[in-house]
Amino acid sequence: MQTLPGFREFAPEECAQRNYIFKTWRRVARSYGFVEYDGPTLESVELYAKKNESGAEILQQLYQFEDKGGRAVALRPEMTPTLARMVATNARQYRKPLKWFSIASFFRYERQQKGRLREFIQLNCDLIGEAGASADAELLALVIDLLRAFGFTEKDFVLRISDRSAWMAFLEKRGVPAELVGTVLQAADKLERDTEEVLNTKLAPAGLTVAELKAFIAEGSPEAFAPLLADLQARGLSEFVEVDLSIVRGLAYYTGVVFEVFDRAKTLRALAGGGRYDALIKDLSDGAADLPALGFGMGDVVLANFIAAHPEATVRMQAAIAADSAAQIYVVVADDARRAEALALTQQLRQEGWRVDLPLATGVKFKKQFESAENLGAQYAVIVGQEWPQIKVKTLAKREETALPQSELADWLKKGENSL
Amino acid sequence: MQTLPGFREFAPEECAQRNYIFKTWRRVARSYGFVEYDGPTLESVELYAKKNESGAEILQQLYQFEDKGGRAVALRPEMTPTLARMVATNARQYRKPLKWFSIASFFRYERQQKGRLREFIQLNCDLIGEAGASADAELLALVIDLLRAFGFTEKDFVLRISDRSAWMAFLEKRGVPAELVGTVLQAADKLERDTEEVLNTKLAPAGLTVAELKAFIAEGSPEAFAPLLADLQARGLSEFVEVDLSIVRGLAYYTGVVFEVFDRAKTLRALAGGGRYDALIKDLSDGAADLPALGFGMGDVVLANFIAAHPEATVRMQAAIAADSAAQIYVVVADDARRAEALALTQQLRQEGWRVDLPLATGVKFKKQFESAENLGAQYAVIVGQEWPQIKVKTLAKREETALPQSELADWLKKGENSL
Repeated sequence: MQTLPGFREFAPEECAQRNYIFKTWRRVARSYGFVEYDGPTLESVELYAKKNESGAEILQQLYQFEDKGGRAVALRPEMTPTLARMVATNARQYRKPLKWFSIASFFRYERQQKGRLREFIQLNCDLIGEAGASADAELLALVIDLLRAFGFTEKDFVLRISDRSAWMAFLEKRGVPAELVGTVLQAADKLERDTEEVLNTKLAPAGLTVAELKAFIAEGSPEAFAPLLADLQARGLSEFVEVDLSIVRGLAYYTGVVFEVFDRAKTLRALAGGGRYDALIKDLSDGAADLPALGFGMGDVVLANFIAAHPEATVRMQAAIAADSAAQIYVVVADDARRAEALALTQQLRQEGWRVDLPLATGVKFKKQFESAENLGAQYAVIVGQEWPQIKVKTLAKREETALPQSELADWLKKGENSL
Repeated sequence: MQTLPGFREFAPEECAQRNYIFKTWRRVARSYGFVEYDGPTLESVELYAKKNESGAEILQQLYQFEDKGGRAVALRPEMTPTLARMVATNARQYRKPLKWFSIASFFRYERQQKGRLREFIQLNCDLIGEAGASADAELLALVIDLLRAFGFTEKDFVLRISDRSAWMAFLEKRGVPAELVGTVLQAADKLERDTEEVLNTKLAPAGLTVAELKAFIAEGSPEAFAPLLADLQARGLSEFVEVDLSIVRGLAYYTGVVFEVFDRAKTLRALAGGGRYDALIKDLSDGAADLPALGFGMGDVVLANFIAAHPEATVRMQAAIAADSAAQIYVVVADDARRAEALALTQQLRQEGWRVDLPLATGVKFKKQFESAENLGAQYAVIVGQEWPQIKVKTLAKREETALPQSELADWLKKGENSL
């Protein structure tokens, strides 16, 4: 009996890595004044059908079924529709701008590939109610600092920014009819993957060629990026950003800046991607709320691959996990006649906030108890035996032993914590 | 467009309450040396069918469907089968005992009632690989300390413990055939809910009456509880526990101690419940692993109701949430010509670990910026203006203002943090 293909178990070791990613995401997002929200795992199919064109990939990959009440329901494949509904429903009660983030599981029935699973976890950050380049810069700075917090530098990753409105202006100038805009953007999104022949065939009805798209992209940085880049420069983050109009993003609803983050080595899928979607909340809420917005998603699977491929980031993660060991203190019961006292001491230490473990059987050999202590990553062994209320504390890394009355242990540990 | 019935959104205010519950659960479980794990949200239906008798309530309530690959799959209604698989698969590599906890969403298509939702979150704690009363006591102590951490005392809740093996011995003594044991236990589980007449009809085939069950229950504390109670007494937790053989727990797989936690006011459903299931891992793993185990679940919905009904616990929660405000520092841009400097300072403060926000538009009025600062729960406003590199810091609660060079701000804040 196994997990379904594309689904994961997180045994404690993997869960610790996952929680390290979550904690880092949460800490950095919160340092930017973002607050956490979450939505239901299951939603009406209609919620997703509304945002996406019929036939869109995301709808084809839905985990979709009829519930016992006859409703067409789906496991959430993305967060944006839920977010838009939440914001639209209570738009008036919130002070703008909203800076909201969530860490949640998503589900897509995809073919399994490296970096792709059927249940994956994504950090979503959205900044809602502010239209200017300052808001764009704030969100891009957050993307950059999220990755820096794992130990990555400008040598490791790059944030490529583009502008959907520059694309729209170009296509309008070239007289591309509205119904073909999606086709052209999808072709532009595949410039590095499909052959020129295939793409030219796709572009022909719009009266465009691959060469023309490439010429537009090569024009490089339109002036529109100046305020955004100046803002990032003031933050000292210029080195992480490149203007690259070849970034298009497949989704139809983007209206302004769009961006993707890649590893410089180019061995992985995008680490994050997003953009500005100023019309989406209005569309999804049938006009109930009209707020400019931008956001991005960052998945756990590619990020974990990126950390694993990067020795420094791996060491940093391992150090964080080791410092957060299962137990800090192991209470060694040297004499079962003193078990009640050992229990009382354990209870006291736990109340004081320490992570404490002890043997749960009687007659466990001294040596085996110390093995348990090391196995759990404990820093201290507190030995309770015949000499009670005199006890011994052993600092496991240094193999130093101190004898003291049990009443002095709490203070001793507080000092010890500082000296470690 | 709304959420499905029985499903919840967590806007930031609700998410903060949820996260307070998660953080408290996590802190206390970890203080007992428990480590976190998680499993997939979607599993094979077979995994649940195997553990439960056909027709069991939990199977009738499954969110069950066929995926695009033709597999019969279900949203997880409980954690134990996933846990048993994880432990059984790698039983040899783990040092026993295992102390594992998880915080996860579960799904049951139930009629909506107070304290019951269709997607709910549950803390699951399991102690695996240790058969004695010490392990029972360790897990019961954890249940008690989890609730104490929210501010509840022995006046607010009680842990009622019973012994499935005492029931089995009684039924054996009375010659109840194996196939009727389930019927009797289910009747015993409903002594307070069903009428004596209904129950006597159910019990008749087993040759028992309500009066006889009540007599058995009234016998009270069998000697079997002595070691468990002595252990809890050594921890100073006796006041929280009552032996009560009327606690039976509906599920078939319990083999030893079973328990439920209730509010003393008896206005809520059980706050937590669990017990020992020494044969289940062997059964679920087809004999691949044979480990004694016990565990419990504690749901977020009833707990949140319990906190809301208890003024002290509510105040404690609100204080914790307020201390964890969206921003600690608000950078007030008093002069847009100094926006670049304000951005650089914001970046620096965030790198140092502070939660910092600032206006994302230009020309925002001074007064409005201070309103934002208060709205976000900031402790400090840092005012950047014409006098740069001289700045002002305002302690918002005390309305005290200090002028200082920006280079001294980091040190000033560190001292300020201590003095708050």
